[in-house]
Amino acid sequence: MIAEVIADGTIQVLDHGFVRLDDSMADDLSVVNAARVSFARRKEAMDESDEGLIRFLLRERHGTPFEHNSFRFHIRAPLFVAREWFRHRVGSFNEFSMRYARATDDFYVPEPEDVRTQVGKPGSYSFEPVEPELAEATREELRAVYDAAYATYERLVERGVARELARLVMPVGAYTEFYWTINARSLMNFVSLRAAETAQREIRRYAEACERFLEEKMPVTYAAFVAAGRIAP
Amino acid sequence: MIAEVIADGTIQVLDHGFVRLDDSMADDLSVVNAARVSFARRKEAMDESDEGLIRFLLRERHGTPFEHNSFRFHIRAPLFVAREWFRHRVGSFNEFSMRYARATDDFYVPEPEDVRTQVGKPGSYSFEPVEPELAEATREELRAVYDAAYATYERLVERGVARELARLVMPVGAYTEFYWTINARSLMNFVSLRAAETAQREIRRYAEACERFLEEKMPVTYAAFVAAGRIAP
Amino acid sequence: MIAEVIADGTIQVLDHGFVRLDDSMADDLSVVNAARVSFARRKEAMDESDEGLIRFLLRERHGTPFEHNSFRFHIRAPLFVAREWFRHRVGSFNEFSMRYARATDDFYVPEPEDVRTQVGKPGSYSFEPVEPELAEATREELRAVYDAAYATYERLVERGVARELARLVMPVGAYTEFYWTINARSLMNFVSLRAAETAQREIRRYAEACERFLEEKMPVTYAAFVAAGRIAP
Amino acid sequence: MIAEVIADGTIQVLDHGFVRLDDSMADDLSVVNAARVSFARRKEAMDESDEGLIRFLLRERHGTPFEHNSFRFHIRAPLFVAREWFRHRVGSFNEFSMRYARATDDFYVPEPEDVRTQVGKPGSYSFEPVEPELAEATREELRAVYDAAYATYERLVERGVARELARLVMPVGAYTEFYWTINARSLMNFVSLRAAETAQREIRRYAEACERFLEEKMPVTYAAFVAAGRIAP
Repeated sequence: MIAEVIADGTIQVLDHGFVRLDDSMADDLSVVNAARVSFARRKEAMDESDEGLIRFLLRERHGTPFEHNSFRFHIRAPLFVAREWFRHRVGSFNEFSMRYARATDDFYVPEPEDVRTQVGKPGSYSFEPVEPELAEATREELRAVYDAAYATYERLVERGVARELARLVMPVGAYTEFYWTINARSLMNFVSLRAAETAQREIRRYAEACERFLEEKMPVTYAAFVAAGRIAP
Repeated sequence: MIAEVIADGTIQVLDHGFVRLDDSMADDLSVVNAARVSFARRKEAMDESDEGLIRFLLRERHGTPFEHNSFRFHIRAPLFVAREWFRHRVGSFNEFSMRYARATDDFYVPEPEDVRTQVGKPGSYSFEPVEPELAEATREELRAVYDAAYATYERLVERGVARELARLVMPVGAYTEFYWTINARSLMNFVSLRAAETAQREIRRYAEACERFLEEKMPVTYAAFVAAGRIAP
Repeated sequence: MIAEVIADGTIQVLDHGFVRLDDSMADDLSVVNAARVSFARRKEAMDESDEGLIRFLLRERHGTPFEHNSFRFHIRAPLFVAREWFRHRVGSFNEFSMRYARATDDFYVPEPEDVRTQVGKPGSYSFEPVEPELAEATREELRAVYDAAYATYERLVERGVARELARLVMPVGAYTEFYWTINARSLMNFVSLRAAETAQREIRRYAEACERFLEEKMPVTYAAFVAAGRIAP
Repeated sequence: MIAEVIADGTIQVLDHGFVRLDDSMADDLSVVNAARVSFARRKEAMDESDEGLIRFLLRERHGTPFEHNSFRFHIRAPLFVAREWFRHRVGSFNEFSMRYARATDDFYVPEPEDVRTQVGKPGSYSFEPVEPELAEATREELRAVYDAAYATYERLVERGVARELARLVMPVGAYTEFYWTINARSLMNFVSLRAAETAQREIRRYAEACERFLEEKMPVTYAAFVAAGRIAP
C-alpha cells in the first residue's frame, strides 16, 4: 500500500490522498556552496570531495547549509493526518477552509489489512492486524458515521446554517488539502519523526512519499541522511 | 456569553471550554528594559516616561522589546478552534492525544443565539442569528451526530480497534486540551487576528479571554496595543 | 550611488559589496494558488482577477500565501551591515568565517557625500553631509585604522596566533559574505524595515537591491506591496 | 578562568563580561505537565516517576515539552561572541546600539594562558597555548589597536561625524550587551553547540555560564540532558 509511483510529480497516498511536488529549488550543490562560503569559496558543479563534505555536515549536525533550498508540496490528506503535520512549525502552510468552501465528501476508510489493534504498553505500542471480520465491520462502522455526518452537514447548510458551524459534525477522517513549503533540513526533520516506526501508519505513508522527492532532488544529501540513521542535522 | 469571570486564573469559554493562565513571566518593565538596553540603561521600576516609550514602540512597530516575557496557558477548546489556533507558529504547543488516550465525550453545542447564518459575499461575510426553531433543530442535529460518532468510537475501541483508528469518526466539534506558551508580541498578533470581526465567533471568545490576561499582566502594553488599533508590533 | 545595474543577476552595492540572486523559486502565481487552496481551486496561469486577489491579500495582511516561494541571495557586505541583517530570524544564513579562513582586507570607506552628521533628537534623527574637508579627513581616519588593524591581524597570524583570536582587532567596517534564503513575506518585512528612512543608509542600499529582485520575480506582489505603503503582510 | 560564582544571579565571564539571569519562569514540573496533557493529566508536584518521564522525553527527543518555560538573560560579551550567539534564531534579542549610543571603551584582552595557536587540519583543529612572550606581545598588539581605534572613534564623533559611521572603526573585540529570552529546549541546543569542544573558547565560557542557570532552575531536566550526552531534544 506504500506509495508506489511518481506520475507527473504526484504520488497517490491512502484511498483519496496524494503528495504532489508543485515546484522546487533544490539540489545538492546549494548545500556545498552554503557550507563553503565559510571559506569564501564557490563551485559551479559538485565533485567527489563535495559528497564527503555533505556526509560530514550531516553527521556532525551542521544543519544550516541544508536550509538554502525549497520544496513546495501540494497535499491531500485526512484531517487527523493534517493535524499532526501542522505541528511542524518551520515551514509554510495554506489549507482548504471549511469556513469558506463546501466540505469535501471524501473520507478515509483504511484498507482491511490496515485495520489494526494496539498491543503492548504506553510508550512502546505495536500494532497487529485484526481479524478480517472485524476489519470489515470497522470499515462499515466508519462509513456509517461518515455518511450520517455528511448528510447532516448538507442538511444544515441547505437550511441556511453557516458552513463554519455546519462543519462541527465533520469527522477527522475527512480529507483536506494544503500547500506546504519547506526546506530540506526541516523536511528531513519531518521524515525523521513521521516516517519512523513510532509514527501513525497513515502519516508515515505521506512522509515516505515526501522522502521520495527529497531523494529525487537531492540524492547525495538523502544518502547521507540515511547513512546518519535518518536523524536530521 | 462572552467570558466573564477570572476565577483562580481561569476563564470559562463556550459550553465546556476554558482558558487558564498556568504561569507567566510578564510585566511592562521588561519591555522598557529590553528597549533601553540600546542605550545600556536599565531600571528597577516604571515611570511615566516609560509609558510613552511603550506607546512609541508599539506605534512604530518595534516589536522585539515585547518578546522578553512569557505566558503559559492551559486551554480546553473544540478541535475546529484548536486547528485555527495551531496555525500560529511562533509559540509552543503540547496537546491531548487521541492516539494515546481515550477521546473525550464533550462536544461543542452552540447556544441557540449562536446558531447563525452567513450573509453577504466571500471576503465580506457577516452573520445573523437563525430562527429559534432552526437553532434548536441544529443543536439536536449536532447532538445526534456527536452521540452516534461517540457510540461508534466506544464500540470500536471495545472490540479492540486501535484508538488511533477509532478516532477517525470523531467530529471536529469534540473538545481537546493543550498548553500554549507564548510571548506578548505573538499574543498580540494572535489577538489581533483572532479577536477580530473576521474571525470565527468561537475562537474570538478564546482570543478575548487570552486578551484579558495580557491586560492584567501588562496593562501599559495592552493600553498601547488598543490605542494602536489592535495591530501587533 | 544607489545600486544601478543588474548584470548577471548581481547588483553592486557600496565600494566592495554586492547582492547576487543565486537562485529563486518565485512567481506571483504561487501566491494565488496558495490562497485559492482555501477553496480547493488551482490555476495554471494568472489572470486579472488574480491581481486583485494579491492586492486584497496584501492590504488585509493575509501573509501566509506569500511564503510559498524562495529567494537565495549571495551577499557581500560590511560586518556592521551584516549584524543588522542577521537580526531577521525568519530565513537562513551561512556566513564567511574568520575562525576558519583568513580575514578579507576589504573595508568599507564611504564616498565623500556619504560622510554625514546626525541632526535632531533621539527617535527622530536626520542626517546631513559634512563639509568636504571633514569628509576627506574621515575617510583617511578610517583607512588608517583599517590599515593598522589589518597589519596587526597579519602579524599575529604570521607569529602563530590562532585566527579566531587574531580577528579580535578586525573593525566592523570589514567585509564579510553570506548566503541568505528567504521567502517573499519575510523579504517584504526586511525591505519594509531596512529600506525605510529610519534605517542606516548603508543597509538601505542593500535592501533596495534586494527589492529589485522581488520586483523582477513577483511584479504583481511587489506593486501591491508598494501600494500598501510598503508594509509587509 | 571559567565562570565560578553566581552572585545576585550574575556570573562574571571574561575580563569585562557577565551572564545575569534577569528573570525566569522555569521548573521541571512544567515539562511533566506539558507531556502529561497528552493524557489529560496534570500534577501539582513532581514525583519519582516524573524524573523517569523527563529522562525518557530527552532520550527519545520529544522536544516540545521542554518549551513551556522561559529564561531572560542579560549578557555582556564581545562583538565576535555576540555575532555567534545571534545566529541562534529561536529566541529573542535586544542589543545595545552603536547607532544610538556612544560605543563602550571596554575591549576583550585574553588572559595570557588563553592566547593560543591553532594545531591540526580544518575540521579537526585543536588549540595550544603560545609561549609567554608571544602571549604578552599579542595582548599588547590588541591593546594598541583597541586604543587607536577608540581614539579615532572619539575624534570622529567630536568632529561631528554620525555615531553610526564613526563606529566603523570599532574592532569586534569591543563589548556589547543584550537581553536574550529563550526556552529550555533552545537553551539546551545552544549549550550543546556552544559549550562543545568545537566551539570557540570565549563563547564556551558564556555557554557554560548559561548552563549553570539551567541546572539551577531545572535540575532534573539538566541531569537528563547530561545523561543523554548533552544532545538537545
